[in-house]
Amino acid sequence: MRLTVLISCEDKKGIIAITTNCVAENEGNIVYIDQHVDGQEKTFFMRIECVFSNEDSASRFHEQFELGPAKQFHMDYDIFSDRQKPIMALMVSKYDHCLYDLLGRYKSGEMDVEIPLILSNHKDLKPIADAFKIPFYHIPVTIENKEIAEKQQLDLLSAQKVDFIVLARYMQIVSNRFISNYENSIINIHHSFLPAFPGAKPYHSAYKRGVKIIGATSHYVTEVLDEGPIIEQDVVHVDHAHSIEDLIVKGRDLEKVVLARAVKKHLKRKILVYNNRTVVFK
Amino acid sequence: MRLTVLISCEDKKGIIAITTNCVAENEGNIVYIDQHVDGQEKTFFMRIECVFSNEDSASRFHEQFELGPAKQFHMDYDIFSDRQKPIMALMVSKYDHCLYDLLGRYKSGEMDVEIPLILSNHKDLKPIADAFKIPFYHIPVTIENKEIAEKQQLDLLSAQKVDFIVLARYMQIVSNRFISNYENSIINIHHSFLPAFPGAKPYHSAYKRGVKIIGATSHYVTEVLDEGPIIEQDVVHVDHAHSIEDLIVKGRDLEKVVLARAVKKHLKRKILVYNNRTVVFK
Amino acid sequence: MRLTVLISCEDKKGIIAITTNCVAENEGNIVYIDQHVDGQEKTFFMRIECVFSNEDSASRFHEQFELGPAKQFHMDYDIFSDRQKPIMALMVSKYDHCLYDLLGRYKSGEMDVEIPLILSNHKDLKPIADAFKIPFYHIPVTIENKEIAEKQQLDLLSAQKVDFIVLARYMQIVSNRFISNYENSIINIHHSFLPAFPGAKPYHSAYKRGVKIIGATSHYVTEVLDEGPIIEQDVVHVDHAHSIEDLIVKGRDLEKVVLARAVKKHLKRKILVYNNRTVVFK
Amino acid sequence: MRLTVLISCEDKKGIIAITTNCVAENEGNIVYIDQHVDGQEKTFFMRIECVFSNEDSASRFHEQFELGPAKQFHMDYDIFSDRQKPIMALMVSKYDHCLYDLLGRYKSGEMDVEIPLILSNHKDLKPIADAFKIPFYHIPVTIENKEIAEKQQLDLLSAQKVDFIVLARYMQIVSNRFISNYENSIINIHHSFLPAFPGAKPYHSAYKRGVKIIGATSHYVTEVLDEGPIIEQDVVHVDHAHSIEDLIVKGRDLEKVVLARAVKKHLKRKILVYNNRTVVFK
Repeated sequence: MRLTVLISCEDKKGIIAITTNCVAENEGNIVYIDQHVDGQEKTFFMRIECVFSNEDSASRFHEQFELGPAKQFHMDYDIFSDRQKPIMALMVSKYDHCLYDLLGRYKSGEMDVEIPLILSNHKDLKPIADAFKIPFYHIPVTIENKEIAEKQQLDLLSAQKVDFIVLARYMQIVSNRFISNYENSIINIHHSFLPAFPGAKPYHSAYKRGVKIIGATSHYVTEVLDEGPIIEQDVVHVDHAHSIEDLIVKGRDLEKVVLARAVKKHLKRKILVYNNRTVVFK
Repeated sequence: MRLTVLISCEDKKGIIAITTNCVAENEGNIVYIDQHVDGQEKTFFMRIECVFSNEDSASRFHEQFELGPAKQFHMDYDIFSDRQKPIMALMVSKYDHCLYDLLGRYKSGEMDVEIPLILSNHKDLKPIADAFKIPFYHIPVTIENKEIAEKQQLDLLSAQKVDFIVLARYMQIVSNRFISNYENSIINIHHSFLPAFPGAKPYHSAYKRGVKIIGATSHYVTEVLDEGPIIEQDVVHVDHAHSIEDLIVKGRDLEKVVLARAVKKHLKRKILVYNNRTVVFK
Repeated sequence: MRLTVLISCEDKKGIIAITTNCVAENEGNIVYIDQHVDGQEKTFFMRIECVFSNEDSASRFHEQFELGPAKQFHMDYDIFSDRQKPIMALMVSKYDHCLYDLLGRYKSGEMDVEIPLILSNHKDLKPIADAFKIPFYHIPVTIENKEIAEKQQLDLLSAQKVDFIVLARYMQIVSNRFISNYENSIINIHHSFLPAFPGAKPYHSAYKRGVKIIGATSHYVTEVLDEGPIIEQDVVHVDHAHSIEDLIVKGRDLEKVVLARAVKKHLKRKILVYNNRTVVFK
Repeated sequence: MRLTVLISCEDKKGIIAITTNCVAENEGNIVYIDQHVDGQEKTFFMRIECVFSNEDSASRFHEQFELGPAKQFHMDYDIFSDRQKPIMALMVSKYDHCLYDLLGRYKSGEMDVEIPLILSNHKDLKPIADAFKIPFYHIPVTIENKEIAEKQQLDLLSAQKVDFIVLARYMQIVSNRFISNYENSIINIHHSFLPAFPGAKPYHSAYKRGVKIIGATSHYVTEVLDEGPIIEQDVVHVDHAHSIEDLIVKGRDLEKVVLARAVKKHLKRKILVYNNRTVVFK
């Protein structure tokens, strides 16, 4: 049985020793350890994966860790077991490339996750959901019905015990009320290298500015549009000969890959958020 | 004798044929042709390199081209001869990495250019200029003396018949008056992927925003700070473990390469500017 | 009506002028021209796209070009019309990622092509073909039946007037007899940066050698395994922490993108082959 | 006082705990920990940086570590103190770009190292050594005098207590006798993405093969030419329009950066070698 422990706390001496000891005392074996110290903020971050021979020793570790190191160092921490598969929901609109890509990876076993539902404000992508045999809920969203629509969405998500949500080119702004239910658990893909070109139509802006690279950024959704903690970014070179349409086509390949990388890192519990930034362990 | 012809005009039928014909009729051989059409703006751009067996046929071509195609299609055009080496001035402050890099390339024969002078508002880099045997002029710039200082700079540049200026991490904003003397002929290196993080301390802003890539941008200097036409951009991946100091060190390698690429493209007459964007021929 | 003309011949004076003239005389408008000279081989390559107002002027151009420039300069040339959509066949085995990717792009209109059939030596990917409504032919291939199997394949391809074939991770070596029917028209994706790691299991070899980058290469298939003319290559960084399985997963994303780029360039008639190398126009 | 500990041993339970404990008991603070397990080889690798308040506690740790964890787990290990600056020698021939680059970085404080000497089989680069005020020894190497020349080189290196050697485009093959004195301590830069194009003239081979990327590889020198453990690799895209000369110029920028990155990682004690592969900690 494998536990993944994510820790953050004030940086002090001895945190690593006391924590690794606690694993060893319960006959756990650390198969991965990575840590980071933010020198300016004097904050310590650590990610440990440890294997226990049985559930008993794992839960004994959990208990001792809570009462020992976690208490002593006032840690914020999360412990995840490989016995519990994360549950992911997808929200989409009309663009299909990210949806195809994520479902293809899911199907080929690249992502260890359950996908109990896809939500959309349009019907267009239902055939894809059908082809992959995933329930698809069409909930139109307008200015008038937004509150009710989000209530419906939240009910569906909650009924399926969804852990995190991926906005796979979902073309609606989600409300703060919605976000507050899934703090650091809504992953968005924005089609520019943020902070350049936030908001609508970034490829048009990129064309107009005459940039020689375009990018994509995946980030957690927060109350401020396109300003959440960045998980992953990548770019591709372009030149004067690329029309806006060319940028859109080139950008699609980026969006797919950057979103998939972010989702996989989230799935593997590799990400810690603080000060609107991410620590992404290797 | 080799001529490089840069053309822009309204997009119409027959421009390529009439131009290439004009070369052929004067016994020139086209060794390179590249063209671009901006469909939205209905503007045509072309770059031709052609070899003439002697100066006579070259100047006959020049004349016929001016009276023929250029006139007929109301072209903006420039004709450069390989007999005239471009003259480049460098302006620097205290950072030495771009200066070392450019002079190293110059020394190793990578750039076919003359460098008659280096201007600086600080004395720090004089030893490098000395080592490379290039005259170095120290002209301090303050808020008070800026107008006079720029006058001195312009006099020196003009005395050396400088064609274009490279700001190799020159840490002063040049005035509009200065710029107007060298339109699309002052190349700057900015240490971010513009339009993200314009202005001062981009690495600090990048760190704060928690981006996963940092970049560098070379562009022509215009009246609006860091908003001139972009020539070249590149980026490098970073992560949470990089301190601001790390970003600065990583960024240096980018700045050097991105600036050098831009300078080499300018030198080879590969760049056309329009609408605050560049066409950069291959 | 748009024609794309691909030309190669001995490098001589006046080729561009006579060719562009021939377009102009038939009231064609050149919307794209790119050329390349191999100085060592003294060979000239050119790609022109020109728009004619009607079919008559286009075919007049075709005729005049054939009798004029093409004859005079002993050109090898091809002329493609946008009225004739290229016809592509896919050959696959068990891996689905490249197939998903190509069909997704096809579906979203990214590739202007017809796909009348998918051939496979295994049944596994039939459901994908079905989902995209493309006829799927299962032709098992063994050492014993290879000749007969290829005969069947060739019959199906020929019946559909297939222009070119994409081996989307097709895990069989095709015979010289097969190749000779589709010279420079079979595109393969090899999962390494050739010429490193040709042949089977390149990710295993890459792991063993401890490389810090892995790559993918798309190339035309020739008689010598993995030594055909390279169309496109790309790489991704890896490190010691990547297991062979990790390399395979990372590599998949590369394979998809590199193959798709090659197919799109082939479709747009951007590739000329000579001396086992490619000229890939922009 | 900061110690860097590099460990490798058979993978077993409790190694991290016992080691981190040993640090904590001597009032050290771990500021960095990274580990890797090669699952196939069942080998454990770890790198720890720890800060001790004084030399006494540091040497107490050293002693206890040796008698405790190191003995118990049969570790191979190295402990480096930040009080001892590494000593690096450069060996060059006629190419100057890597030399300029490394000395520029050294000068600007990017590398915490001493450079007591530069060895060369040619006189050409002496002026650069002079400009940077580093002793330059010209030792010509021929087939006849190779043994004697290497003896002279080794004497000079040994007199300066050189820790490691960087072959900055040194165009001679060093003998096994020479290598045996500096196991995993001679860093070479090869101008291709190994294992493609080993040996002489890789840019010529790359051109001939028509590759679309060229690369550079830094590696430790072993008895088999260009087959030592790879430290760092990178590539850049090229196309048909690049002549061999263009590849050489483009490659130079890669060689500089790839070599500099390898040297910096070696300097920071980030590299462990096993089975002709490297573990390069972050």
